Amino acid sequence: GSNQNRTPTPLVNPSPPPTPSDFYPPMPGEFLLIGLGLAHPSDISVRALKHLRTSCGLSALPGAPDEGTLKPNAKVYLECYTSIFPHFSIDEVSKELGVPVLEADRTIVEQQPEDLFFTPVLEDDATVALLIVGDPFSATTHSDLTSRAAELGVPMTVYHNASIMNAVGATGLQLYRFGQTVSIPFFNDKWRPHSFATKIRANVDADLHTMCLLDIKVKEQTDENLLRGRAIFEPPRFMSIATAARQLLESLRVLGKGEVGYDEQTTVVAVARIGSTDQLIASMSLAAAAGFDAGTPLHTLLLCGSLHVMEEEAVSRIRLSPEEEKACLERGERAGDVGTSDAENTEEEDEM
Amino acid sequence: GSNQNRTPTPLVNPSPPPTPSDFYPPMPGEFLLIGLGLAHPSDISVRALKHLRTSCGLSALPGAPDEGTLKPNAKVYLECYTSIFPHFSIDEVSKELGVPVLEADRTIVEQQPEDLFFTPVLEDDATVALLIVGDPFSATTHSDLTSRAAELGVPMTVYHNASIMNAVGATGLQLYRFGQTVSIPFFNDKWRPHSFATKIRANVDADLHTMCLLDIKVKEQTDENLLRGRAIFEPPRFMSIATAARQLLESLRVLGKGEVGYDEQTTVVAVARIGSTDQLIASMSLAAAAGFDAGTPLHTLLLCGSLHVMEEEAVSRIRLSPEEEKACLERGERAGDVGTSDAENTEEEDEM
Repeated sequence: GSNQNRTPTPLVNPSPPPTPSDFYPPMPGEFLLIGLGLAHPSDISVRALKHLRTSCGLSALPGAPDEGTLKPNAKVYLECYTSIFPHFSIDEVSKELGVPVLEADRTIVEQQPEDLFFTPVLEDDATVALLIVGDPFSATTHSDLTSRAAELGVPMTVYHNASIMNAVGATGLQLYRFGQTVSIPFFNDKWRPHSFATKIRANVDADLHTMCLLDIKVKEQTDENLLRGRAIFEPPRFMSIATAARQLLESLRVLGKGEVGYDEQTTVVAVARIGSTDQLIASMSLAAAAGFDAGTPLHTLLLCGSLHVMEEEAVSRIRLSPEEEKACLERGERAGDVGTSDAENTEEEDEM
Repeated sequence: GSNQNRTPTPLVNPSPPPTPSDFYPPMPGEFLLIGLGLAHPSDISVRALKHLRTSCGLSALPGAPDEGTLKPNAKVYLECYTSIFPHFSIDEVSKELGVPVLEADRTIVEQQPEDLFFTPVLEDDATVALLIVGDPFSATTHSDLTSRAAELGVPMTVYHNASIMNAVGATGLQLYRFGQTVSIPFFNDKWRPHSFATKIRANVDADLHTMCLLDIKVKEQTDENLLRGRAIFEPPRFMSIATAARQLLESLRVLGKGEVGYDEQTTVVAVARIGSTDQLIASMSLAAAAGFDAGTPLHTLLLCGSLHVMEEEAVSRIRLSPEEEKACLERGERAGDVGTSDAENTEEEDEM
């Protein structure tokens, strides 16, 4: 059968159903875009792992008596700047999947996809895989990549997986009651945008919850190093729930409740390391969130609209105790405003 | 380390990072809620499959020299009424996973979870797994299930997976530009609700896309059979994109464009069997969608808000040709209004 997963062309008269072999087609050269899921390298799907490994010349699953031999032109990259696994290094990912995995930073994915991903497939029949923590399409950058691949006629297979966009259903908040997702960028001296707050207002007006995706800065260069072409990267920074809450409170102070729709008492749900064995889900007031320590990355913050009965039960069950809430409030007040420089902000992060 | 994936209690001082063994903890009795992904039984994650099989007394992966022996009190159910695999029967799911799988219809999941899922775990140290096509939390019913389990203190592990809610990113429309998701129920003689249309209007006003989840009726009983307690079920029905489009057009006629926000010319994206090798993604006008044949289930319909440059490119690339669009328009006009009885509606579905 024709493979719509690779080249999605519209059909008025669809093709016949695929046969089992269609799900593992032999491919001389192909670009694989594989979602790894949320927390563990083995959150990859069985089908994706079998496809990846056999395309690389290896046995379908690691640990077979005959492991096979890695094809010299097979390359597997892990995208390392839009999301991360909370507890696994790139070496541990390699070990779990049983293939050597290379790191792909923003420069590689956004500026060199032709050289590294597409040309080897088209000209050298290579298998090139890009692994992405979460789902391949939760970040705009990967949609762009598939567009470019489609334009160049690169054979491509995509494997979906869980992402924060659907996994937050685990909180008990219902996915169909979320409005537009907002991204909260790190404030700095020069740039303190409040556009996320006005988007939240639209969700509040429609009585919907809001998912706030928190900024990640990995392999970022200073303006000076970028200008001078120096491959010196800043230490990674992951926005914490506390920092996000303090930025939201700053937007509230600057714009007023009428413009942002939420206030200090708005119920929020803190989500950290979802899908991991140490995932954390807790509800509290936004003011308390400014002093909440959710531990290591990644963090997500949900702002609740009105709660239906079942949602109310779920959110009550995970609510901080009054003592915990009070401790967080005091801590949030001590922390005060969001730092006005990146450096200061980083120190505050370390303190928490 | 403590396992927050099972009992999500809030922590102000989080626990230390998990060790590798925490990811495969030995459990005497446990309820597993496992997302299978979108298209194929092997879209299950490697980690979930290993956990499922070892909890059942089997080797971690199927096909090992020593397969082990299925524990007598291990039970694996496939939820069969909120979603389906497009090309796999329950027997094929059993075969792929290497465990016997039982069917769980609405009655079992919503009315008997204590008897079948929770009591065996609590009183008999049994492993009971509920497999769900897609992600466990895309349907409200499974959130309810985890609430009940938490109340009863049932040990539980959840495995997330891809769902339609994030996989539609494959269309090139950006996930963070979607507003509230709407569900479109089958119209019948007595019940033709237009509430989905007014929700779409709110999304249009906020310049956001809308995902329309289309009705699924599996193992439904007629009122009479339900009253008389007869276990006679109606044939399964899956709403097609064409039926959804015709219902949307009826709402437009009844309420007017000002109330619904869209019209015949609104660009829609038809999505069918996503993640499968015969997935179909195509864009067209809403009027053309009323005559579009997307083939076998499951179908999803996306209504576009304004398109950003990259989205515009992606949607243009998958647009029907003018000839295809014309053929669909004519077919949609011939099909006319949505049937006013279920029977008529079913016939129309068969015709297409």
